[in-house]
Amino acid sequence: MTHERGFASDNNSGIHPDILNAMVEANQGHAVGYGGDKWTEQAIQLFKKEFGDDTEVFFVFNGTGANILSLKSASRSFNSIICAETAHIQVDECGAPEKFTGSKLLPVSTSDGKLRPEDIKPHLHGFGFEHHAQPGVISITQATELGTVYRKEEIQALADLAHEHGMYLHMDGARLANAAVALDMNFREFTRDAGVDILSFGGTKNGMMMGEAVVFFKPELATFTKYFRKQAAQLSSKMRFISAQFIPYLGNGLWKKNATHANRMARLLEEEIKSIEGVEITQPVDANGVFAIIPGELIPELQKEFFFYTWDEQRNEVRWMTSFDTTENDIHTFGNLLRQKMKK
Amino acid sequence: MTHERGFASDNNSGIHPDILNAMVEANQGHAVGYGGDKWTEQAIQLFKKEFGDDTEVFFVFNGTGANILSLKSASRSFNSIICAETAHIQVDECGAPEKFTGSKLLPVSTSDGKLRPEDIKPHLHGFGFEHHAQPGVISITQATELGTVYRKEEIQALADLAHEHGMYLHMDGARLANAAVALDMNFREFTRDAGVDILSFGGTKNGMMMGEAVVFFKPELATFTKYFRKQAAQLSSKMRFISAQFIPYLGNGLWKKNATHANRMARLLEEEIKSIEGVEITQPVDANGVFAIIPGELIPELQKEFFFYTWDEQRNEVRWMTSFDTTENDIHTFGNLLRQKMKK
Amino acid sequence: MTHERGFASDNNSGIHPDILNAMVEANQGHAVGYGGDKWTEQAIQLFKKEFGDDTEVFFVFNGTGANILSLKSASRSFNSIICAETAHIQVDECGAPEKFTGSKLLPVSTSDGKLRPEDIKPHLHGFGFEHHAQPGVISITQATELGTVYRKEEIQALADLAHEHGMYLHMDGARLANAAVALDMNFREFTRDAGVDILSFGGTKNGMMMGEAVVFFKPELATFTKYFRKQAAQLSSKMRFISAQFIPYLGNGLWKKNATHANRMARLLEEEIKSIEGVEITQPVDANGVFAIIPGELIPELQKEFFFYTWDEQRNEVRWMTSFDTTENDIHTFGNLLRQKMKK
Amino acid sequence: MTHERGFASDNNSGIHPDILNAMVEANQGHAVGYGGDKWTEQAIQLFKKEFGDDTEVFFVFNGTGANILSLKSASRSFNSIICAETAHIQVDECGAPEKFTGSKLLPVSTSDGKLRPEDIKPHLHGFGFEHHAQPGVISITQATELGTVYRKEEIQALADLAHEHGMYLHMDGARLANAAVALDMNFREFTRDAGVDILSFGGTKNGMMMGEAVVFFKPELATFTKYFRKQAAQLSSKMRFISAQFIPYLGNGLWKKNATHANRMARLLEEEIKSIEGVEITQPVDANGVFAIIPGELIPELQKEFFFYTWDEQRNEVRWMTSFDTTENDIHTFGNLLRQKMKK
Repeated sequence: MTHERGFASDNNSGIHPDILNAMVEANQGHAVGYGGDKWTEQAIQLFKKEFGDDTEVFFVFNGTGANILSLKSASRSFNSIICAETAHIQVDECGAPEKFTGSKLLPVSTSDGKLRPEDIKPHLHGFGFEHHAQPGVISITQATELGTVYRKEEIQALADLAHEHGMYLHMDGARLANAAVALDMNFREFTRDAGVDILSFGGTKNGMMMGEAVVFFKPELATFTKYFRKQAAQLSSKMRFISAQFIPYLGNGLWKKNATHANRMARLLEEEIKSIEGVEITQPVDANGVFAIIPGELIPELQKEFFFYTWDEQRNEVRWMTSFDTTENDIHTFGNLLRQKMKK
Repeated sequence: MTHERGFASDNNSGIHPDILNAMVEANQGHAVGYGGDKWTEQAIQLFKKEFGDDTEVFFVFNGTGANILSLKSASRSFNSIICAETAHIQVDECGAPEKFTGSKLLPVSTSDGKLRPEDIKPHLHGFGFEHHAQPGVISITQATELGTVYRKEEIQALADLAHEHGMYLHMDGARLANAAVALDMNFREFTRDAGVDILSFGGTKNGMMMGEAVVFFKPELATFTKYFRKQAAQLSSKMRFISAQFIPYLGNGLWKKNATHANRMARLLEEEIKSIEGVEITQPVDANGVFAIIPGELIPELQKEFFFYTWDEQRNEVRWMTSFDTTENDIHTFGNLLRQKMKK
Repeated sequence: MTHERGFASDNNSGIHPDILNAMVEANQGHAVGYGGDKWTEQAIQLFKKEFGDDTEVFFVFNGTGANILSLKSASRSFNSIICAETAHIQVDECGAPEKFTGSKLLPVSTSDGKLRPEDIKPHLHGFGFEHHAQPGVISITQATELGTVYRKEEIQALADLAHEHGMYLHMDGARLANAAVALDMNFREFTRDAGVDILSFGGTKNGMMMGEAVVFFKPELATFTKYFRKQAAQLSSKMRFISAQFIPYLGNGLWKKNATHANRMARLLEEEIKSIEGVEITQPVDANGVFAIIPGELIPELQKEFFFYTWDEQRNEVRWMTSFDTTENDIHTFGNLLRQKMKK
Repeated sequence: MTHERGFASDNNSGIHPDILNAMVEANQGHAVGYGGDKWTEQAIQLFKKEFGDDTEVFFVFNGTGANILSLKSASRSFNSIICAETAHIQVDECGAPEKFTGSKLLPVSTSDGKLRPEDIKPHLHGFGFEHHAQPGVISITQATELGTVYRKEEIQALADLAHEHGMYLHMDGARLANAAVALDMNFREFTRDAGVDILSFGGTKNGMMMGEAVVFFKPELATFTKYFRKQAAQLSSKMRFISAQFIPYLGNGLWKKNATHANRMARLLEEEIKSIEGVEITQPVDANGVFAIIPGELIPELQKEFFFYTWDEQRNEVRWMTSFDTTENDIHTFGNLLRQKMKK
């Protein structure tokens, strides 16, 4: 079973050539391990340029690693962490956040993957009452797991709510670049400037081989993060090969090029299929994912040609993700295939 | 401060070209994430060929990740884990094993980094007594953190001791290849065939970019490991780029070539310096590390030219590690430098 | 501020004289610590008589201790635990279950505190999928936190659902006696015989000083519980003073006498107030709690005389709990007070 | 097998009548749960009187509970905790400290259960180095598990060492009263005034039914302790029955009376047996324990009459503990028995 092309996930794509080149170039001689190398220094500077000089940055292996480090840095075990019930930290990390932080996750039902203040408020009680896990963090995903994107004001409202209650706002930015392109903003505008305290900055889903970063906008939250990173087994010995990837990614604007393309491909797919009778698009196509309900019997047939995942088996809702290497031909071929199948 | 060459650690070296090529070749089109790709399948087969068809293999990011997954799979939180007081899991992982397993580590003093049955026996009591952490795992490092190598019979004796008490034997094989070369054995002979139950199989220190494996010789121990790996944030989405590295490493004998070279360089260094007056070599040079006591005031001067770490500050014991890319020229240059400094 | 009498919680009552006598009688000479005494042996036998000879019983200090030991014995850290969103383990234990088990709690919304199969089924997916916390335990409270009681068939249906999926059914029986009286059954009929696997058996809320038990109906689940109990700091050194309390409680039917009274007092309170205009009773009064909506401005005034807690501040819903020492006079006095306040 | 009298442990004794009376007197009417009662308030005031007005006090169920709360309040998971290898937290709590704190325990070998600065210093390195668990707490036991007692200057020296390194000094005072009597000091003199930061204050081993306290002399360490206590399942609902025990214990000097007696009984036992040929007393009898080597074959015979534990099986070292209810007759009877057995 080989799926040369598919829409399963943006992490089914490979490494962008510029990223791979940066890794090859970093493969020179000896370098001090665990981040004491010049590539890591350069990459950190690029983050500081992007987010502000007092930003603290920690590179890790993967998105789950970034999330558990972010949450651990901002909470104690008696805290609760409020998130959407569709959040990656809630449904796709096998309980890693609870295991590493000891905290309670409080999932909130949403229609589109986006938390709103009114959904969170009922959970903001019991402060100071020792029987109750103390609300500590609001965690949002940008772009969300449903392909939607928070507007800056929406983020600001959540940040205000968090801060009014002595809580922190964490953003899981596994697809941050797709969100930035969707919003036509630079990273800082809708993160730090919108009140986000801690950011899981993702690169893997947008052309990197592997590599994510935990970014702190309140430096005091980062006091112990280097120890937590080591204890979480997220400190790479040959770190230069993670750091080097961020150099073209941030320094040459590769993030934008890749995400612009991926988002465009998603909209193209939406265009291609929205008029097909029997296909119901279920979420706004803000970023690089298209969610749709299609006849259940077609799903396995389509998957044979282009692999993708069923999102909600009960309603036959499927998810199609595009990435930096999705081609217009992929879209048209798939659109034609879908159109053909639907006709039968 | 740049150290173009040094003896700080075998992880200061880069990526062997064959490994990098394998990664470049794996960068083709789409692949199912999280290990559902053909490179992972091929790499697993290479492990099975090496260790036996019923071996269970899980790829992870780094050595600490491999160790905590190994230990978690073989213990419950009320167990204790017996190791040398110099073990990486005891002194170099910032408490990651305790954090992830909840277990107690029992460090045992040794002269050469090697555990012996008589050192362990005093800890083998209190079985069934609920007040006492239940001895669950003996963990050894091969080659040890002191550059020494367990002989097969020594491992067998520890395995027997463990199994007589219903315990498991774990081997931290961050430098397994160096040990294999030292013993002139294949991997299986001194691991599975000597009674090891679980192996942390290391590649990063011997020419890989990053990538380790947890290898189970008792498949029942692996029942839940896939969940623990995800929960430990050690499951790579684009896993093909880890797996692909193992293909030349195991399939083409690169491990042996690299480790043979590194070990030879360590012996060459030993040769180069052992006759220098005032230098005392403190451990047998079995693998790719040389430990020596030198005059304390020389340490910072030497480090300016070739970076390395002080192992024991109180006795001015230093550690020099060699790797696949250490050159004879490095050795001679450093030997000359040391000789020169000692004369003064 | 002293509240001589109140309806705040059944744990605001003291110790029943028979229980206190049993403790006084156990205060004779020396006894082996940690449960190796004759009172503990006798108490265990009483549990076996009640629930079956192959029952395994572990005494602990409190209800949270019983719950975390139950859940730990039935799960691994990658499991999820499904419970009502009003469950004590979800809202009143400050995250103790997550901290001690490492597992994810999945709260389910209910109208009356009772889980139903159809509410749980949407969470029963992702089995074998390593990204998803593996559903491991269904946990129900009997009587529920809302004063309602599961019928035997309802429990059986949940047990069947759990077992079909390889999961366990845990019952938090902090008010088990009140449920037994409500159902007019012995303990075994609606626990073990209804398919419950593990029971947190509560005594504190029904006349004991302190003391709860973890009861296993699948002895294999109890294999490691003695170690977990010690590790959870729930093993009492002078255990005889906990065990001795269970002797009159179980052996002399005190549980039934006390719970019958408490339940009767709750129904009397319901009778007393249900016809008062402006008072809306919100839950069936199955056990020893009455939930009602009353005018918000009256709450603080009433609390001055009889302390109780507001359950839901947004809708002015209050909770009144009765206990073994609630008197008819308490009820009538409070009823008159409420009637009087409502008239104004 | 009943042992009416024995020297197994000071927790084999029962409840002192004054304590039991205090509990009976507390059994009046209703009281707010979880510590909001007048007995708890009174007991807290007694602690403040003893240790200073800004002391923070938290009552818990048992000694392990007190220790894990103390350590959790003073450390993060990446810290290490240095203790004697004979410490209760190291050998008698089934790994509870590691499980609850996630931290590493570093056991130090001692001859008499007492840590000395020179034993600790070799572990005080790696500060700021993320690979190394960060030394965070020194934990000592007073009186020690070997029946010895730290002098005030010894404690002060350890406190100074801890504080110089930004660490905290924790004292496990399960037998604090015995130490106070041995030193002829009040509690404060050799705890707070000697630089101790956190104290596990024990009562159970000296006549209480159950009940210990965590006492903070740096209030800022206690900021989150109430949440940790609840999360650790150490918050009693009917707390008045724990608190009430401290009222005669601290308020009426019962602690001193009981410990004075227990210590005297230990010295009497020492007197009784030290001249018996073949009995070697192995530790100074500072408090209420006598450690001795006796012929191994006598141990089971003696245990039939007076139960006690073997401390070190390899050298036939036994431990005899005395308590508030040990009688002179116990001592003489046992002395005679031992003398008689030794003659054979």
